[in-house]
Amino acid sequence: MTSQQKKHDEHSTTGAYVHSGEEFDRDTNYIEDRIVAHSGMGPGEDDREHGIWPVEKNRYRLVAARACPWANRTLIVRRLLGLEDAISVGLPGPTHDARSWTFDLDEDGKDPVLGIERLQEAFFNRFADYPRGITVPAIVEIDSKAVVTNNFPQITEDFTKEWKEFHREGAPDLWPAELEDEMRQVMQYIYTEINNGVYRCGFAGSQAAYKRAYDRLWSALDCVEERLSTRRYLMGDYITEADVRLFTTLVRFDAVYYSHFKCNRQPLFSMPNLWGYARDLFQTPGFGDTVDFEQIKRHYYYVHEDINPTQIVPVGPRTDGWLTAHDREELGGSPFDEVTGATPPAEVRDSERVEAGHNPLYPVAN
Amino acid sequence: MTSQQKKHDEHSTTGAYVHSGEEFDRDTNYIEDRIVAHSGMGPGEDDREHGIWPVEKNRYRLVAARACPWANRTLIVRRLLGLEDAISVGLPGPTHDARSWTFDLDEDGKDPVLGIERLQEAFFNRFADYPRGITVPAIVEIDSKAVVTNNFPQITEDFTKEWKEFHREGAPDLWPAELEDEMRQVMQYIYTEINNGVYRCGFAGSQAAYKRAYDRLWSALDCVEERLSTRRYLMGDYITEADVRLFTTLVRFDAVYYSHFKCNRQPLFSMPNLWGYARDLFQTPGFGDTVDFEQIKRHYYYVHEDINPTQIVPVGPRTDGWLTAHDREELGGSPFDEVTGATPPAEVRDSERVEAGHNPLYPVAN
Repeated sequence: MTSQQKKHDEHSTTGAYVHSGEEFDRDTNYIEDRIVAHSGMGPGEDDREHGIWPVEKNRYRLVAARACPWANRTLIVRRLLGLEDAISVGLPGPTHDARSWTFDLDEDGKDPVLGIERLQEAFFNRFADYPRGITVPAIVEIDSKAVVTNNFPQITEDFTKEWKEFHREGAPDLWPAELEDEMRQVMQYIYTEINNGVYRCGFAGSQAAYKRAYDRLWSALDCVEERLSTRRYLMGDYITEADVRLFTTLVRFDAVYYSHFKCNRQPLFSMPNLWGYARDLFQTPGFGDTVDFEQIKRHYYYVHEDINPTQIVPVGPRTDGWLTAHDREELGGSPFDEVTGATPPAEVRDSERVEAGHNPLYPVAN
Repeated sequence: MTSQQKKHDEHSTTGAYVHSGEEFDRDTNYIEDRIVAHSGMGPGEDDREHGIWPVEKNRYRLVAARACPWANRTLIVRRLLGLEDAISVGLPGPTHDARSWTFDLDEDGKDPVLGIERLQEAFFNRFADYPRGITVPAIVEIDSKAVVTNNFPQITEDFTKEWKEFHREGAPDLWPAELEDEMRQVMQYIYTEINNGVYRCGFAGSQAAYKRAYDRLWSALDCVEERLSTRRYLMGDYITEADVRLFTTLVRFDAVYYSHFKCNRQPLFSMPNLWGYARDLFQTPGFGDTVDFEQIKRHYYYVHEDINPTQIVPVGPRTDGWLTAHDREELGGSPFDEVTGATPPAEVRDSERVEAGHNPLYPVAN
């Protein structure tokens, strides 16, 4: 498709992220199948012809590189909702070549459950001639080793709405029905202006496109900085999916976007409300414990060879500031409380813990 | 010379600043002629055979790109000492190709006094087959249009010691005799560890060389941060050449070295003593008024195509912080006072003023 060829997939097989003279235009063509609850309603379950698969424990594996902000959303929501026992997780390493994500961190370079070396194999198992980007997050059916969906905004929404049967006791409601209309507007703004806005800066193909992208990004960050001056969370007193979506960009901001994508009006840590908000979430179980700063830096600085040809990964910046006091409790609200009945998720299981030294929550033992 | 070929000139004609697998090793081979006072002592004046030229008003032109930290030293010292009437200045633009600095900001693209388009011409007028880097600062004899010297550390030392006859009334003594031994040690440390240390990070040819360079740089910055906790200036109560040499790196730190050279443990503005010290100097007449942040950014991000292939120049960071209160007076000391008899330099002459909008001292008129 012509319209598709003009779009730039972030995991493009040409290795080119910057297209001279052009604005960055994300390819948003995904495999849009969905996994839905046994509701007895709607188009019917396991209706593969219509792209509908049933919710089922241990049938699917979530493949989510820690480095990737879109995948990071799924890791957070899975933790908050306690879906670990229902949906296992495969974690590709931070770097990849033109053939995209690999399981190079796993023993023998293979995902221990799917037995594949590259995520690409699972896309080809679904569509032998799959022509688009091999992206994370992806949900793979374990038996067929075939991708069900890589449609990231739908994956987390369905984790909340379709996987209810498998939520832990005390799981927070990340999509409160009474807020949903406003939430969708807020999330759309966060997506176009901030989540994707940083990429628009970094992959701008001209000085003019970059300048427009920079102004647009900072206009949005100023707007959110203001919104967070009176609200502990984006939607008020409680954490919602909107916070998950903003957090995964903010946690990468000083580590990557500030320098590598030239989003450098000022560091996040100099924006009082955004920095307090980001630290508040980082320190909330389910958020910071999914973050691997070393994988994040290595991914961007190594993979985007057309903007960092030396592939040298910066040692900085310091991350110890993420654990400092944020005083956001003063605004009221709470991540988990008796009003909502939400409780913190359990400790991260050992097999899923971020490597020591890659996150200030997990210091290297002396 | 083999040893010379192994060194990497910052203004190398190959356009390659990074050499894979290698540490950055600055080519420090310069034209080492000197311009000395009519002292009647020493090897004799105007002794061209021995590389000695006489101090003489209006005989020489200083060529000093605002973008370049080594050239910036000469602009500051010339201002502090009031040498504007004795030595005129030519200002190449911030960007250049493999043939190095050009006068592209001047009318018709020619230096109005020398009548040349490229600084290269003045090097070739001196040595027709000049094989090394075409660097600023350079002092050019106006009549012959030939470079006398580009040996930057000697140029500023001679401005103080040899050009005394032409210093303004109230010029500070930037090389107090009683401090000279210690000053030379301090300046050597500043040079190898900081002035050149940032380049060692940015042009490292491997992850390991970069890591060593980063650790070495930050060890030095921590050391100077500590030294400046009890001293207003590097050598105590008064400004010396050592401060000039540290300042020109610090003023470029957040604008360029932090991101472009990956010197990113933390921004300068988060180092309390170094940031206070740098602002104190910036706000002292003769320092900040020589700084053009836009030319600085444009130089590094445009010229080093091998580390920034898109050549896109960042819009940030904000520079308004440079004018905020620094409270360094509390440490005692003074840039200009009755004890030393030093007074501030006169206002920058109109023809030499930094362009409005390129420095917070010169805001764009509304």
